[in-house]
Amino acid sequence: MPQKRAIDVAWRDALRNVQPDGVAWIREESLDTALVSEYRDALRSLGIQVMLETEFTGGEALKTWNLLPPLLAMFQSSGLTRRSVVITTGGGALSDFVGFAASIWKRGMQVAHIPTTTLAAVDAAWGGKTGVNWGEIKNQVGSFHPPVFVHLDSRWMKTLPQREFQAGLAEAAKHAMIDPQVNLSPTPSFADLIQGLDSSVNAWNVWLSESAAVKTHIVAQDPHEEGMRIVLNLGHTVGHALESACLSTSTPILHGEAVALGLAFAMWEAEHTALHDEPLSKDAKQEADACRVWLNEHIPTPLSTLPEAEVLWPFMVQDKKNFGDEVRDVAWRGTGHLVWPVSWKKATFEATWNGFVRFWNESPHLS
Amino acid sequence: MPQKRAIDVAWRDALRNVQPDGVAWIREESLDTALVSEYRDALRSLGIQVMLETEFTGGEALKTWNLLPPLLAMFQSSGLTRRSVVITTGGGALSDFVGFAASIWKRGMQVAHIPTTTLAAVDAAWGGKTGVNWGEIKNQVGSFHPPVFVHLDSRWMKTLPQREFQAGLAEAAKHAMIDPQVNLSPTPSFADLIQGLDSSVNAWNVWLSESAAVKTHIVAQDPHEEGMRIVLNLGHTVGHALESACLSTSTPILHGEAVALGLAFAMWEAEHTALHDEPLSKDAKQEADACRVWLNEHIPTPLSTLPEAEVLWPFMVQDKKNFGDEVRDVAWRGTGHLVWPVSWKKATFEATWNGFVRFWNESPHLS
Repeated sequence: MPQKRAIDVAWRDALRNVQPDGVAWIREESLDTALVSEYRDALRSLGIQVMLETEFTGGEALKTWNLLPPLLAMFQSSGLTRRSVVITTGGGALSDFVGFAASIWKRGMQVAHIPTTTLAAVDAAWGGKTGVNWGEIKNQVGSFHPPVFVHLDSRWMKTLPQREFQAGLAEAAKHAMIDPQVNLSPTPSFADLIQGLDSSVNAWNVWLSESAAVKTHIVAQDPHEEGMRIVLNLGHTVGHALESACLSTSTPILHGEAVALGLAFAMWEAEHTALHDEPLSKDAKQEADACRVWLNEHIPTPLSTLPEAEVLWPFMVQDKKNFGDEVRDVAWRGTGHLVWPVSWKKATFEATWNGFVRFWNESPHLS
Repeated sequence: MPQKRAIDVAWRDALRNVQPDGVAWIREESLDTALVSEYRDALRSLGIQVMLETEFTGGEALKTWNLLPPLLAMFQSSGLTRRSVVITTGGGALSDFVGFAASIWKRGMQVAHIPTTTLAAVDAAWGGKTGVNWGEIKNQVGSFHPPVFVHLDSRWMKTLPQREFQAGLAEAAKHAMIDPQVNLSPTPSFADLIQGLDSSVNAWNVWLSESAAVKTHIVAQDPHEEGMRIVLNLGHTVGHALESACLSTSTPILHGEAVALGLAFAMWEAEHTALHDEPLSKDAKQEADACRVWLNEHIPTPLSTLPEAEVLWPFMVQDKKNFGDEVRDVAWRGTGHLVWPVSWKKATFEATWNGFVRFWNESPHLS
């Protein structure tokens, strides 16, 4: 008899408190059918009408402007109102895409997310950032639209390809670089999760929740990224550029894999004080070493060579954090010690990136 | 020597306080060229870079989903950042459309509005509602995105067709039905404004500001329409339906003209307690009579016959205020005395509308 998870009760309470006139349930395809039935029954038992139930193929390609009108047309034809709640069950691309559509329909319907990927569970589902890509530039169109709840149930993740499961852990590494209160290791077992071991399901729920709490704590203090929320961009200026640069190549790279490289680059920058002249403390050097080992072990990179600096730079120039013609970034100087803003000049970035690439080529990947 | 208007100084201060890294100035075409030059010089004197300057044809047809990508592409190519400010100079359709585009670009650029119509000056430019239409349904896609400032300068309105100038005053009539502190009459002279008389320009600035203050006072207490802001929808449930119903006919009707009819219908409903059984006080009856006289005098309607109830009803069902299958409305029971929510049933609406139509046909238009 599986142990009752407290978290299962909480999402039902949250939904009941919203008193929706109905829900739209939008899922990624290929989820565990038994779990889908279990959740459908749970919605029914709440007496809430499911006005729309549909599936999308998840992944970055979903975050496309031209795919918005068909979804909005579904909102229209199913008679959703401002009092309806749109529930997503899927990865970060699904919650970003559907969250954005919901945020602009009738000037905003409420959303709730049930993440089915590690990335969404520790990061994307939380904090209200939504968006679609614009050409090759990520999240250029979007909104801040906080979910009414996020429900973590790691059972959804057992159908996830291992590569994607692992890549999502990069954001947890980032959280550990930001907040001394969370610890990266040990991770629960993925193999046990796949086998459906309840102890593993619970252990992952706790592990993912604790990492997500780093983000929610920061977002609560700065919902619209006017101040400290910006530190959550650690590793993402270069990470997004890598992701964009690889998008049209023969080796596309997952967001988490790109962020893992971005974090490794941030540590390299710190060790070479390329952007900010405060040197790394001895403690911070040890933290960097430990983090590299963890990234290496948990997040293999699919790239055999890294893109050139000149390929990355044009994407960095498009970053939303920029102000005027400065490419602004977050620098790391030890756990919980972030510096914002620091500014890349093209020449400085090229020199630093080239140094990192040499180091990366010579050491076991990554970094 | 024209008298210096204090309001001219305030918008420059507001812009300086924002410290933008540049502005996009998006105007309606066919504005007074001397005024455009004057404002361009004022922007230059602030040392603020105009990164994008472009013109659109105003009016409801602009509020179209498919026109968003070209505008977003302009945002992209002109290098606007989150620290840029988008300034609109035009009517409510322009500020709604451009305001929406700005609200989703990079998850939100700041906007400022310089209204050039009476409608925008007392209503549309204020309060942060943005939107585009979805098929025939108004503002189905949009956001709440408050401007950093709204600058009133009635000199922009002297190039406005008289019909449009007059129609915009309907929202001022609505404000007078909501707030006992504002007074509808007397209005300054439109003829004097056209001639550029400074005293008339100033008088209209004051008149429009006072009316706008009714809205800003309410919006400040309820920015996302979760409570009392809903009263600003007085006359708009039927007004929007009328506007939508006439959109594809040979007699399209301006928003203000539709709202004027909606307000007249709200007073008719009040006199017949169709939705709410509280009878009208003697004072409220006098207020209704005075308001009808004012509407009659200031806002001629272009319709010779009103649409049938069955034509209006399908549009009312789409109203964003609805919850489940109720068509919800705001009822009027005297100045400052609004009732929310009241619910229309199809049969009640038809009977009430038919009564109003008979009354309207028999009395001097409108109502």
